[in-house]
Amino acid sequence: MTHHTRKSDKHYSLDDDGGWTMTNFESGLWLIGLGPGDLSAMTTASIEAAKSCNYRFLEGYTALLPSGEGAKLVEIVGEYELLMRPEVENPDQLLELASENAVALMIVGDPLQATTHVDLQLRAKAAGINCHVIHGISITTIVTGAVGLQSYRFGRQVTLAYPYGDYLATSPFELILDNLQRDLHSLVLLDLDPTGMGIDEQKPMSPAMAVDILRRSADKIGENIEQWKIVLCSDMGRPEQRIFYGTLDDVESINNGSIHCIVIPGRLDELEVEALARWN
Amino acid sequence: MTHHTRKSDKHYSLDDDGGWTMTNFESGLWLIGLGPGDLSAMTTASIEAAKSCNYRFLEGYTALLPSGEGAKLVEIVGEYELLMRPEVENPDQLLELASENAVALMIVGDPLQATTHVDLQLRAKAAGINCHVIHGISITTIVTGAVGLQSYRFGRQVTLAYPYGDYLATSPFELILDNLQRDLHSLVLLDLDPTGMGIDEQKPMSPAMAVDILRRSADKIGENIEQWKIVLCSDMGRPEQRIFYGTLDDVESINNGSIHCIVIPGRLDELEVEALARWN
Repeated sequence: MTHHTRKSDKHYSLDDDGGWTMTNFESGLWLIGLGPGDLSAMTTASIEAAKSCNYRFLEGYTALLPSGEGAKLVEIVGEYELLMRPEVENPDQLLELASENAVALMIVGDPLQATTHVDLQLRAKAAGINCHVIHGISITTIVTGAVGLQSYRFGRQVTLAYPYGDYLATSPFELILDNLQRDLHSLVLLDLDPTGMGIDEQKPMSPAMAVDILRRSADKIGENIEQWKIVLCSDMGRPEQRIFYGTLDDVESINNGSIHCIVIPGRLDELEVEALARWN
Repeated sequence: MTHHTRKSDKHYSLDDDGGWTMTNFESGLWLIGLGPGDLSAMTTASIEAAKSCNYRFLEGYTALLPSGEGAKLVEIVGEYELLMRPEVENPDQLLELASENAVALMIVGDPLQATTHVDLQLRAKAAGINCHVIHGISITTIVTGAVGLQSYRFGRQVTLAYPYGDYLATSPFELILDNLQRDLHSLVLLDLDPTGMGIDEQKPMSPAMAVDILRRSADKIGENIEQWKIVLCSDMGRPEQRIFYGTLDDVESINNGSIHCIVIPGRLDELEVEALARWN
């Protein structure tokens, strides 16, 4: 972490017509959710807080800002610096800076959905540094809503990790089966980090790779999943958002889009059948 | 549904410093999420869309705007009219209006998390009327994040309904037990509508009533829950947000706050134990 970030020399307000003014902006760590990446989904509070902080960082490894949005973010809130995993998981420098300044750590999606951010919050507390949270729209909300399946019929959320060499973990697949046995839907997030280290450039998992992992997991524990129909959600919450409902073969052949996740539906009620029929 | 709503005669933009301009605002139904009720959590896109619509309605029965925020909403987006359940579930008038105008239906939280809104979206489609969705922050995201429990360790979401006369449904309690048996946390939303009709004034369920329903449900199926420690989340996503972690007796005695929900933790990992210890 270098300290090239430009210091903001004034506080902003958005109160032309009934907005909020933040005065006496407090020092400490501000965890600020940006929403899904299309920056029009930033909240007034998140814009205000990020603008008002003296230093701004973007957490760059639990989620990805789409190309082009980085420049827009500078226009909206001011200059910022990218922080990768080591500087967030060993946050001594970050917390030292926050002990005397208002420091924004901007996070794509919602803060505190990742273990790392909860841990950071607890470390700030232990160091006697104020930690404020400004929520953002999470991918979970967008996907469960947009697809049209009932949000209360989702079971535990699953993340498919990249396989490391020959090793393939079947536990994510087993969680999906467990949800299915209880007639629940599964939201399956796809890994962004092929190395598992959080330091290299992110590489969102392709639909083909995700289907391959599902098939190999099923083979390994003796399940047949070739009859499954699943929902592929691409670039959700962005203008180019697309949803597709089809077989594993169909999904495997989809090449466009940059960030994807999958929903594996459990038993469908009548309204849900109709809702999914839109995405064929 | 009367038509007193003021027509907006111009389109707005927020592009002083890199924002978005919406031109040629399309006719149709705009389902617009307002977030949790503190209007600083509205997104740029939701403010822009609501301002730009020719007619504005607030859906007033699946969730509640805090007192005082209604006037602020008028300042931010313009005049609007409240719609209750019958006019949303029998939306002929609403859809007719949307066939030739841009009509905003503003929803506290995120649209499409409630069955009603998915149904409305499908009806609009069937009637050949464009239906656009602008997402908002959902209570689900805020609670799972703010409490500090891992979002992927939540099982199926549960809603505790008001008992009707002598009848008490035990199915919500059984879903909680099912999550617990699988070491998963439960987010328990509390009912707002004592009549189940969606037409009267909303009456958010009190912590005491929620604990009473949990106890009576446990009695009815022969479980002992007096050792439980649960998390009470009050007025989440608003400046007065409070979180408390304690016994059923503790939670039962809490009288302040206006809207509550509960988290019933499953098995806790080390980080989660530390995260919950903040709320004692």
